[in-house]
Amino acid sequence: MIKELWTRRSIRSFKDTPIKDEDLRTILSAGLTAPSAVANYPLELVVIKNAETKAKIAGFYEFSGFCVQSPLSVLVCYDKDKRTSYFKDSDFGPLDASAAVQNMLLAATALNIGSCWTHALLSVEAYQTLLNLPKNIIPVALVVLGYTDKTFEHQDRYDEAKIHHDKW
Amino acid sequence: MIKELWTRRSIRSFKDTPIKDEDLRTILSAGLTAPSAVANYPLELVVIKNAETKAKIAGFYEFSGFCVQSPLSVLVCYDKDKRTSYFKDSDFGPLDASAAVQNMLLAATALNIGSCWTHALLSVEAYQTLLNLPKNIIPVALVVLGYTDKTFEHQDRYDEAKIHHDKW
Repeated sequence: MIKELWTRRSIRSFKDTPIKDEDLRTILSAGLTAPSAVANYPLELVVIKNAETKAKIAGFYEFSGFCVQSPLSVLVCYDKDKRTSYFKDSDFGPLDASAAVQNMLLAATALNIGSCWTHALLSVEAYQTLLNLPKNIIPVALVVLGYTDKTFEHQDRYDEAKIHHDKW
Repeated sequence: MIKELWTRRSIRSFKDTPIKDEDLRTILSAGLTAPSAVANYPLELVVIKNAETKAKIAGFYEFSGFCVQSPLSVLVCYDKDKRTSYFKDSDFGPLDASAAVQNMLLAATALNIGSCWTHALLSVEAYQTLLNLPKNIIPVALVVLGYTDKTFEHQDRYDEAKIHHDKW
């Protein structure tokens, strides 16, 4: 079984060591290989290493401040103009992005890279302006990454009270 | 590295073998152990084995018909009344649910269980009526599961064109 499903943890302090290119590629690949509703694959990833950019992002919301202490973050976005008629009024972009983020967090854990999923949907316009994103590119999550010495202990949130059988 | 990140595939035909209780527990646990925005943990899971219920779900939308040929499905829902003020007007329930689904698909793959993520947000009221869900319980995804003889080949969707550096 995949131990990282139970050892992944939100990590908010990191070593200064830069992320190796091959490790970054693995994490980005894990994200882009996540499933997508109706095989739409609308994701776009922005790798953020620039210190000034990170400092500005840190001001967007209280839970993203620690990104300045990490070597890099990845902004997971989707192209909202890439849609199919099946979607009707629903927007599956944030769901696709979330599956990708989860893959990235697991891949990072396997590489002894600490990670934290911070949400970007509360700061869409601020990100679009800062990073020159077209209006159809919607940021969903900022994945903050960095090597860590922390140990990832097994955690199991199974809860019988949250499991229902055939009906409520 | 976690090979299932690249070998998971949408599977829509299954063996008749029932899912073992311990395998189901592992999959449900993987879902509930996924991260949740601001540690809100709003998910509720409905395990669906009843043939009549599956037949009705098969009529909800064209892409869910194959659920009748699987031994069980799990409807991943969230409680929209379980919110924190941090969320403002945003609803992170579907994002939490999507991270959980991705964990479940990966755990299933590791157990040689085929899986397919079908979307439920287009059929919220139909599910609520069929399964007697309270109005605050929102179904996001139906995860269809069954043992399979199919091989899961490595697939890598890394695409340099979707990677941006520091800005668009």
